[in-house]
Amino acid sequence: MCQGFRASGIVAKIKKNHTKDLGLIISDVPATVAGVFTKNRIKAAPVVLDMERIKSGKCRAVVVNSGNANCCTGEQGMKDALQMTKAVADKLGVAEDMVLVSSTGVIGQYLPVEKVEAGIPALFEALSADGFMDFAEAIMTTDTRPKMLSRTIQVAEKSFTLNCVAKGAGMIRPDMATMLSYVCTDVEADAQTLKKLLINAVDLSFNRITIDGDTSTNDTVLIMANGASGLSLEDTSVNEAFKGALDAMLVEMAKMVVKDGEGVTKLVEIKVFGAESDDDAKKMADTVAHSPLVKTAFFGEDANWGRIIGALGRSGAFLDPDTIDISFNDVMLVQNGRWCGAEAEAAATRVMKLPEFAVAIDTHLGVGAFSCWTCDFSIDYVKINADYRS
Amino acid sequence: MCQGFRASGIVAKIKKNHTKDLGLIISDVPATVAGVFTKNRIKAAPVVLDMERIKSGKCRAVVVNSGNANCCTGEQGMKDALQMTKAVADKLGVAEDMVLVSSTGVIGQYLPVEKVEAGIPALFEALSADGFMDFAEAIMTTDTRPKMLSRTIQVAEKSFTLNCVAKGAGMIRPDMATMLSYVCTDVEADAQTLKKLLINAVDLSFNRITIDGDTSTNDTVLIMANGASGLSLEDTSVNEAFKGALDAMLVEMAKMVVKDGEGVTKLVEIKVFGAESDDDAKKMADTVAHSPLVKTAFFGEDANWGRIIGALGRSGAFLDPDTIDISFNDVMLVQNGRWCGAEAEAAATRVMKLPEFAVAIDTHLGVGAFSCWTCDFSIDYVKINADYRS
Repeated sequence: MCQGFRASGIVAKIKKNHTKDLGLIISDVPATVAGVFTKNRIKAAPVVLDMERIKSGKCRAVVVNSGNANCCTGEQGMKDALQMTKAVADKLGVAEDMVLVSSTGVIGQYLPVEKVEAGIPALFEALSADGFMDFAEAIMTTDTRPKMLSRTIQVAEKSFTLNCVAKGAGMIRPDMATMLSYVCTDVEADAQTLKKLLINAVDLSFNRITIDGDTSTNDTVLIMANGASGLSLEDTSVNEAFKGALDAMLVEMAKMVVKDGEGVTKLVEIKVFGAESDDDAKKMADTVAHSPLVKTAFFGEDANWGRIIGALGRSGAFLDPDTIDISFNDVMLVQNGRWCGAEAEAAATRVMKLPEFAVAIDTHLGVGAFSCWTCDFSIDYVKINADYRS
Repeated sequence: MCQGFRASGIVAKIKKNHTKDLGLIISDVPATVAGVFTKNRIKAAPVVLDMERIKSGKCRAVVVNSGNANCCTGEQGMKDALQMTKAVADKLGVAEDMVLVSSTGVIGQYLPVEKVEAGIPALFEALSADGFMDFAEAIMTTDTRPKMLSRTIQVAEKSFTLNCVAKGAGMIRPDMATMLSYVCTDVEADAQTLKKLLINAVDLSFNRITIDGDTSTNDTVLIMANGASGLSLEDTSVNEAFKGALDAMLVEMAKMVVKDGEGVTKLVEIKVFGAESDDDAKKMADTVAHSPLVKTAFFGEDANWGRIIGALGRSGAFLDPDTIDISFNDVMLVQNGRWCGAEAEAAATRVMKLPEFAVAIDTHLGVGAFSCWTCDFSIDYVKINADYRS
């Protein structure tokens, strides 16, 4: 159990389908907080508000609605975001600026803030240490399942816990995406240390996933640390254990987000090594990971390596066509830029039938390396996104 | 009629489905030639060969096969490309380096060059001044229809003609794509003038279209000018008329390529103006044109302007969320970053039901402008590309 935190999720009827759409996490004591936010130039009102409030390094609660992004809603949008945090702060008896807020859903419509306010009493009533799964449900949009992970780590005689909740589904691209994620932990931390650890962990996880290459106006990752476990990041062994757990948990969560992406049937790791530089490796991995032709071939379970070669070639990275190896898991399909034959292709095709596999690309030019996760591009992705608002 | 040119297209059984797959254009006299080629670092053997041969500025023929890209085929691939041009050169009685060659189709398989050679006699027999449509058929891959345009322009008492043939369908992105295009004209031109005019025309046309954002290893645009009309580009009035005709023809052809893109149901022009710079306008137009979420919304005829805003925001261009206008043809849907209401949305949705429409984005920040053409992302695109090789 993540001590000193409670969470809840309820139906406030913001979503048309009347599933859970309003969530709350509170810390019993002021928690240290750090966050990373969308790099999109168009930022939703709650993102703008959180970026300002988080500067204090402290918060007590975060309230989140799904079904409406409160983005491109101008002054009214900011009023609504403020109103949403005020309703929670009043009920909790704290200053407004101790409450953070996120919204996710359709852009450009005003938030039905009266529905949020009407839901606040029930939201507080439902608060529980076991409420994170309800919270995870409440922040879903086109996600098909709630995403929650919890890890408890023993250090000497004591233990600390991390709870992580996320939503994803579409508009997912390196540098975050329509993604909301909240990490609660009962370690003690100062804001600067927490921020550094969060940025590092996000860089290894959420910044390496892509579903469709689109990024959103609302992306937010927040971490709250309330110290209730009695363990502090100032203790080196706690710090190391915490860093390891946070990194691993966010990678696992990032992969869960891709796997539950819109219409996704396969999770594919793109691993590039032997590049002239890490930057070149990143360019190659990103271009392959975003290529619609590569992604539709994954969906079709077609080991069409020509499309991978085509993507590598347009990535901007330095390349020698005669030194490229491409493997699907442990099956080498292309060696020195040439096809390894029908038997290798049949084996690679078998690998592609797995729900998870890796494509490894070695360009034999240096020691640059980078890896990221992508998914296939399916008929259902198109169906889901052609019909999203109707 | 484009004087002094003949073309043909035949079935050489390179393609599994036994449709036309081998094409030839010859000029009765040595023609001045210019070309632009893929910027992909992986270049197919025929591209490498043409880039070398075109330096002479002269050619007599171009031979093209579909069904096999002759790419990632190493030394054997270059031998095969050479063999293909030799077979044509021998039959025509010219030096090998007066023959250019293109290939399009699957990457990574050796070209069945014996099939090409076996087809050469029939290919020469079929040559005719009216053979450009057959040639256009022979270079198709997933194209659903051949693409050929012809324009005859009167200057004073005389006239000159331009014939243009192209294939497209997938792997289409600014900077060319899996695109082959051949322009024949009977004006007289020097190689340098011809190249300048071609680069300019391609920049206005083929470099502004996208289907799926992927680029290919085989892209080639060639122009041949044989002087048979007796008109020369050294004559200013001919030059001006020619430039106007070439620019317009390649724009028309580029739009035909997008309209016949894989699974495409709509041709959409993305027009950005009022940007801080032309470069910013290009970034915004390109990002909107490539966004899978925007493109699936086009397919769904959903005026989901939030996705357009999201794409603008991640384009890297400078933006003020409160000064963005978005129109669908003449229907303004977003003004100063705000939704114009249900009536405007209903009207915009009606516009989206058209097979062709424009999305105009005005950011009111300066005079930077750029426009390009994109298409919707349909269920059929995924189907076609999941099954391409099977």
